[in-house]
Amino acid sequence: MRSALRALADAPRQADEGAPEAWLEVDAAFAAGLRGLEAGQEILVLTWFHEARRDLLELHPRGDRERPLTGVFATRSPDRPNPIGLHRVRIVEVADRGLRVDAIEAIDGTPVIDFKPVLSSVADR
Amino acid sequence: MRSALRALADAPRQADEGAPEAWLEVDAAFAAGLRGLEAGQEILVLTWFHEARRDLLELHPRGDRERPLTGVFATRSPDRPNPIGLHRVRIVEVADRGLRVDAIEAIDGTPVIDFKPVLSSVADR
Repeated sequence: MRSALRALADAPRQADEGAPEAWLEVDAAFAAGLRGLEAGQEILVLTWFHEARRDLLELHPRGDRERPLTGVFATRSPDRPNPIGLHRVRIVEVADRGLRVDAIEAIDGTPVIDFKPVLSSVADR
Repeated sequence: MRSALRALADAPRQADEGAPEAWLEVDAAFAAGLRGLEAGQEILVLTWFHEARRDLLELHPRGDRERPLTGVFATRSPDRPNPIGLHRVRIVEVADRGLRVDAIEAIDGTPVIDFKPVLSSVADR
């Protein structure tokens, strides 16, 4: 991922809290997997929060000590045993070697590990 | 995951196409991460499709040759470079060592790699 967000301290907690556009670069070996994705479409992007803590099991949501200690699996914290990020975004542009998407709260250099379409209704599958 | 689905051939393509309940066992070392999850709540379960093909980049959706060849990232196929499954389920029961959930299309023995709450509205975070 290429993003103007350079450091965790600059990143909003969720995309709809002011995150910028990002460029999701795809290695040439995997580019064929993008066939069928189109600008305007909503997709899910899975990332690997490479700077997360993997040994944390409980925390105060959003770092707010007024909120009760909560298991990480009941939160969207990036700190979790398998620090996978899940981001719902809209595709702005599809290029040969990647996608531009509208708003994502992960920082520059975050590995992108998968893309999935948002599921349509049963009748349209 | 413990499920009555024993083989890929028995598994529906999506949970709302007839998938059974499943028991999601959590290793004791990670059980504290469940604190705050409750029966009735909708969550996302991430799995690792351990029997998937990781070398496939294009396919005919749902195995239907009438449908055009499509990049795996534009489909929900379990066959993909990083075969991560994403499942929206409702919690039926929370126990010390895991969760029972209402319907999931992965087979018995599939590794569970993360749980996430469904995101609430911005005001409720």
